[in-house]
Amino acid sequence: MVNYSPDLNLLFKALADPARRAMLERLSRGQAPVSELAKPLPMSLPAALQHLGVLEDAGLVRSEKVGRVRMCSVEPGTLSLAEQWINARRVEWERRLDRLGNYLANLPDEGADDAQ
Amino acid sequence: MVNYSPDLNLLFKALADPARRAMLERLSRGQAPVSELAKPLPMSLPAALQHLGVLEDAGLVRSEKVGRVRMCSVEPGTLSLAEQWINARRVEWERRLDRLGNYLANLPDEGADDAQ
Repeated sequence: MVNYSPDLNLLFKALADPARRAMLERLSRGQAPVSELAKPLPMSLPAALQHLGVLEDAGLVRSEKVGRVRMCSVEPGTLSLAEQWINARRVEWERRLDRLGNYLANLPDEGADDAQ
Repeated sequence: MVNYSPDLNLLFKALADPARRAMLERLSRGQAPVSELAKPLPMSLPAALQHLGVLEDAGLVRSEKVGRVRMCSVEPGTLSLAEQWINARRVEWERRLDRLGNYLANLPDEGADDAQ
């Protein structure tokens, strides 16, 4: 009954922190070195690196050494897994509203009966 | 620099658990009493109620007493906040790919230069 998808668990947990979302917002505009990701955050570099680790574990960010700099990029495919789960809920919800609308539209009109 | 949006924090944290996602999946298909939400979950009723509380605190679910039954419904507007945040990242990412594509398309063709 319960879908124990570890990916979605890690993914949504990674998105539940403002520092990690700030990193993703920056990386959506292009790749960046770790130092640039950490700079605007109100925390130490080691703390920022921990957040980056959570994003990497969730598959949301990948990083690679380029010379002496570690460059980070977003993994848009992983973010779209989260988007797909939410979209699927919305589609079900909207279908349900459609069915409810059809049901209400096909109800006998009690007012009209009274008028006959 | 960091957007400390408590709503998004609570929202993504609420989505990071498979039992809570299972409850939302069920509620997307229509409202349900607490007992029906808890039944398929491999946990006690009090544990299920705790998960429901997390969903209510995040604004994802509302519940009301109907006679002796507590009925739960999904709040689709809240879920769409999460969707909007993810969509915005994708739009930025796709814009960036478009700019990169334009840049590459407008690069001087070195091979053509060699051939001249």
